[in-house]
Amino acid sequence: MKDDILYHFALGTGTHDFPALFGDVKFVCVGGSPSRMKAFITYIAEELGLGSVGADYPNICAGTDRYAMYKVGPVLSVSHGMGIPSIAIMLHELIKLLYHSKCSNVTIIRIGTSGGIGLEPGSVVITSQSVDATFKPQFEQVILGKTVIRSTNLDDQLAKELMQCSKEINEFNTVIGNTMCTLDFYEGQARLDGAICLYAEEEKLQYLKAAYDAGVRNIEMESSVFAAICNLSGVRAAVVCVTLLNRLEGDQISSSHDVLVEYQQRPQKLVGHFIKNRSAS
Amino acid sequence: MKDDILYHFALGTGTHDFPALFGDVKFVCVGGSPSRMKAFITYIAEELGLGSVGADYPNICAGTDRYAMYKVGPVLSVSHGMGIPSIAIMLHELIKLLYHSKCSNVTIIRIGTSGGIGLEPGSVVITSQSVDATFKPQFEQVILGKTVIRSTNLDDQLAKELMQCSKEINEFNTVIGNTMCTLDFYEGQARLDGAICLYAEEEKLQYLKAAYDAGVRNIEMESSVFAAICNLSGVRAAVVCVTLLNRLEGDQISSSHDVLVEYQQRPQKLVGHFIKNRSAS
Repeated sequence: MKDDILYHFALGTGTHDFPALFGDVKFVCVGGSPSRMKAFITYIAEELGLGSVGADYPNICAGTDRYAMYKVGPVLSVSHGMGIPSIAIMLHELIKLLYHSKCSNVTIIRIGTSGGIGLEPGSVVITSQSVDATFKPQFEQVILGKTVIRSTNLDDQLAKELMQCSKEINEFNTVIGNTMCTLDFYEGQARLDGAICLYAEEEKLQYLKAAYDAGVRNIEMESSVFAAICNLSGVRAAVVCVTLLNRLEGDQISSSHDVLVEYQQRPQKLVGHFIKNRSAS
Repeated sequence: MKDDILYHFALGTGTHDFPALFGDVKFVCVGGSPSRMKAFITYIAEELGLGSVGADYPNICAGTDRYAMYKVGPVLSVSHGMGIPSIAIMLHELIKLLYHSKCSNVTIIRIGTSGGIGLEPGSVVITSQSVDATFKPQFEQVILGKTVIRSTNLDDQLAKELMQCSKEINEFNTVIGNTMCTLDFYEGQARLDGAICLYAEEEKLQYLKAAYDAGVRNIEMESSVFAAICNLSGVRAAVVCVTLLNRLEGDQISSSHDVLVEYQQRPQKLVGHFIKNRSAS
């Protein structure tokens, strides 16, 4: 292939000098919301003492509204939207971007939001294994109409290092646990408050308790394909998500805007601390 | 449930008067990109002679960056991001919004982009049936860890009415055909240009030709769950997507920005004409 167009980033090797733009990237942080990923780049710039106070970081993917991308020093911050297909498109193009840029020794961390199981809201979960809706640590990829099973292993050492960072910060509860990754937010996560719901509260609680017994501590919608693609690409990866509610106690995310904003800063703080430690060493 | 919080819209029945805000909605148009759905509301306002020239339409979901929503007269325009999980969250909250608003006789149309099979790029496909990666007209929904099969039927009469609108406009090629809905853009659609690809060009073409023989004319990533949820909710629905390329001839979307922008206006024109006809009758 002569030129490679990363369509959903509105970037291409024929129009952009990838090694010059991205060659020094060592940490990639990804998360669903574009505004959260912009807030993260501002935060990490301050943490690392890079850039000036109040600096504005331009969106590198300004030519599209599919994803947003920001960079400061060795850190790239990219949004991925919601769900497995959305993050998968982004990851294919991100892995190609890192390859074309000749980056080496890159760590990718997803910083996201999730529903907790049996944890106080605001707790942070560092994913041990990403499991599917039947609690198996696998991701089903459909290729040419056939289902292929892929491993969702994440880097144990990286998870432990992140746990150590949380202890150093000592500001919020953090656990290492399994993360269930689903294809749906309502029926797929046993919520009772979707437009469609064909089961009762008792069945919901039975399912969530079975998940808890299988080591699941939170539920989100991207970790399985994230782990699978990073595995196949040989990139060290971790998933760090805050829990916005305890699903054993309800379905609606009803905390105040300010409380939710503070919760969402927790994975940023934890991963910011990790990057700062690593950059200093 | 006393109040209902539509979290991903940043709207709630306790904070917003739904019947006053949305009670007159008769047409909902949904599409992946927020900026395209904003462009659509401006276009339809002009077509229907509503609002003033150069008017700005505020984003009703300004409290979040998960989705964007715009309204003029009887038309609601909502973005849904990319992929089945992302549009499913939006649809659950949209169906609840329409219910709380006491809307009646609503038509929902997805206006999107897609890859074509055996069609000249820029052709528009009105979906007859949404089929999965094995060409079956069904959607697999995982509920409490178990797979449930749902029908992906769309409204035949509505599809024919839209086809008639395209004939009246007479500006671009339009066909009624099957639409394949996949969970992935690269491996799931037999592309050779993803970060991971474990099959050869010959296998790719074999798969795409088998899809063509099964009546598939385009591939996208949202139609199956869209049809399934609209079916279960008793709402008339249609899918109108432009094809950005012919997948039998390549994988990369390499047309110029201007050409792609014009292509993306075609479903808007078609559905705009349909809404104008309906509003006049």
